[in-house]
Amino acid sequence: MESVSQIIHARWLITGEQNNQTLENHAIVIDQGKIKAILPSKQATERYTATDIQRFPNHVISPGFVNTHTHIAMNYFRGLADDLALMDWLNHHIWPAERTWVSQEFVRDASQLAIAEMIRSGTTCFNDMYFFLQATAEVADQAGIRANIGMTVIDFPTAWAKDTAEYFSKGIEFYSEYKNHDRIKATVAPHAIYTVAEPTLLKVKEIAEKYDLKINMHVHETADEINQSIATTKQRPLRRLQNIGLVTPRLIAIHMTQLDDEDMAIIEAGKPNIVHCPESNMKLASGACPVVALQKQGLNVALGTDGAASNNDLNMLGEMRSANFLAKLVTQNPIALPAHETITMATLNGAKALGLDHITGSLTVGKAADFIATKLDEIETLPIYHPASHLVYAASRNQVTDVWVAGKQLMKKRKLLTLDEKEIKAKAIYWSKKLTKNA
Amino acid sequence: MESVSQIIHARWLITGEQNNQTLENHAIVIDQGKIKAILPSKQATERYTATDIQRFPNHVISPGFVNTHTHIAMNYFRGLADDLALMDWLNHHIWPAERTWVSQEFVRDASQLAIAEMIRSGTTCFNDMYFFLQATAEVADQAGIRANIGMTVIDFPTAWAKDTAEYFSKGIEFYSEYKNHDRIKATVAPHAIYTVAEPTLLKVKEIAEKYDLKINMHVHETADEINQSIATTKQRPLRRLQNIGLVTPRLIAIHMTQLDDEDMAIIEAGKPNIVHCPESNMKLASGACPVVALQKQGLNVALGTDGAASNNDLNMLGEMRSANFLAKLVTQNPIALPAHETITMATLNGAKALGLDHITGSLTVGKAADFIATKLDEIETLPIYHPASHLVYAASRNQVTDVWVAGKQLMKKRKLLTLDEKEIKAKAIYWSKKLTKNA
Repeated sequence: MESVSQIIHARWLITGEQNNQTLENHAIVIDQGKIKAILPSKQATERYTATDIQRFPNHVISPGFVNTHTHIAMNYFRGLADDLALMDWLNHHIWPAERTWVSQEFVRDASQLAIAEMIRSGTTCFNDMYFFLQATAEVADQAGIRANIGMTVIDFPTAWAKDTAEYFSKGIEFYSEYKNHDRIKATVAPHAIYTVAEPTLLKVKEIAEKYDLKINMHVHETADEINQSIATTKQRPLRRLQNIGLVTPRLIAIHMTQLDDEDMAIIEAGKPNIVHCPESNMKLASGACPVVALQKQGLNVALGTDGAASNNDLNMLGEMRSANFLAKLVTQNPIALPAHETITMATLNGAKALGLDHITGSLTVGKAADFIATKLDEIETLPIYHPASHLVYAASRNQVTDVWVAGKQLMKKRKLLTLDEKEIKAKAIYWSKKLTKNA
Repeated sequence: MESVSQIIHARWLITGEQNNQTLENHAIVIDQGKIKAILPSKQATERYTATDIQRFPNHVISPGFVNTHTHIAMNYFRGLADDLALMDWLNHHIWPAERTWVSQEFVRDASQLAIAEMIRSGTTCFNDMYFFLQATAEVADQAGIRANIGMTVIDFPTAWAKDTAEYFSKGIEFYSEYKNHDRIKATVAPHAIYTVAEPTLLKVKEIAEKYDLKINMHVHETADEINQSIATTKQRPLRRLQNIGLVTPRLIAIHMTQLDDEDMAIIEAGKPNIVHCPESNMKLASGACPVVALQKQGLNVALGTDGAASNNDLNMLGEMRSANFLAKLVTQNPIALPAHETITMATLNGAKALGLDHITGSLTVGKAADFIATKLDEIETLPIYHPASHLVYAASRNQVTDVWVAGKQLMKKRKLLTLDEKEIKAKAIYWSKKLTKNA
């Protein structure tokens, strides 16, 4: 008998690897935060002992979700201004609110709300782009979640930085502080082609290559973005990004709703990672990323929620369903993006996009023990024929009961173990009163 | 002080009337199952007394949802066969399963599961089309929910009826049995133009007019339906229905994803009620009903989930979100179908389609007390700026805590008061074992 940290028994176990496997009555054996073995429960009991043994006789266990595009501190703007045109929304609601309110304290408190929401809906890793990076990183560190934090770069002043040089210096300072952290990593995050000029993008490229970081950027989000680029430069954004050598596997291209044949050829040649944000794209009427066509070209397509101001949640279960429905609608094919592939998009493909697929994204021996348990014997998910189908088409976020990252349990039977739910709620109410008082 | 049955105080109250109103700190005063008054909580306390007084200081109270298209007994087929082409799904999975398993007992037990699911997600009225009508009606009666049960007519034999004459005779028998019921009504429900021939449709029309019943029918669900109709009759289905006088306000036309200019003219002239089922239409890749264009023509568009075999839930909160996102995507307009209008579509428009808007569908003095309470002070719906926006864009079904129909409380703090959840779950597991044993 070998002694290990934990043995977790599951009625159903979805590995999230590309073999589309659902195992029954299997156990995950964990030692020192990593998956040591996945084997039938009976064998696990014969071979291993642990002080922490948990049984999930009515649950499916699956890899935690990788939310590959967030602006998590925008959780405090959730529902502040809906049903508006994009520029009205930005100019008259979001940007004024950000100018007035965004600070280190705001980002810290809003990050707590967002990370609590993410853990409660099964997300174990997120990829963020916002301001006051340390504030978010500190909350993520304390909460135990895995995070990639974008070193945001934008060619106009915000409360975070007064000019491009300061964005870079603060970004590099953040990178240096966290470069040896086991769960928190930096990316370089130029906002978009319409807010970041070419000289700045060249500097982004230089820094990303120097420190070997991913580049996380909104690309081809709306038709306006394309039209404006053509009007000012006679070229579409992707061509301009290709010209300066940015369309490579290092790029995480977010949104990508507007793609013509030329764009598709550029992507096929450069192989950037693509992040699909179906709910934000539908809610803002931006368009639909051609996920199935991109996957057919062999490209890696991950899934993100975007910020809660334009979604309005950070719920990857709901996002999987929306991505699945949208893919079937767009392709006019009910077989497009089956359940297991949708789960892979929300887990392993996200890890790949972030360059973390050697660490997380699937239940694979040697990877970190990042996984979730979802209770299926509920009125809403009975009968149970195919657990993967239920995860995508029927389960809701409150059925996620337990969450682990690197073997550490962050939620147990719906109770958050690393965050104070009561305090987080009180702070959200306190800030919303401040925000609306001066509105 | 006047004595009444109930006083329900709400922090926020959405009337669901077309004035898009959200009231604060108001009370619903209920007597003998009907709404007697809606007034500020303070005034309600001064004017009325009741033995049943409940306070919802962190909830929004809104009209119960009217799910305007269901096949509720198909809940036992939830997730049995996903990610398949429509005809493969029907021919090799759903129809064989129905032939083998559908019986009075099956429909009764599956209806319990479905009605439990509906109450738990805030639905107070549904419009069904299936077999063994009495089995569903008895469960609805006992559960206390409001139901319209379709007298299904289809030109081929099923376990329910051997031929068209038997469908009609069993349907009329059902109508006679329930015609004086206060919550359960009949509609005539010819399945679709490709399964019901013209002589049968003429008989449907005759019966509907004789008994003054709505006609509930799948219309223009898929491109195949249109192509098949043109191939066999040189006419699109809506033209054929118009020719026999069926396109009138009596018609509840379900799906309507395929509408050309000729169809739009027919609809504009005939003014049928339209039921949009966005999730089923996306999941089966059927298309998208042009909801906003239809509403602009002054048509009544309601919302339905379809059966759980093609959705895979009966969750009207999720359906509202999908309808909203889809409308914005299809119109390329982020202002299309704002939150309040989406709620109206899921409530009052459904009641109108069923001819029940004098009884239910909005919180209006004189109507039945059919309403729900949704808890908003949760991690997922904080901060709270606009409760209507949260209902559509952020809340999930488990946040619906309390449900009333005709003043009778069917769920209290998430506990079902008229159905036995434990027994329902056990039966679902029992039946699923039977179904998969012989598969």
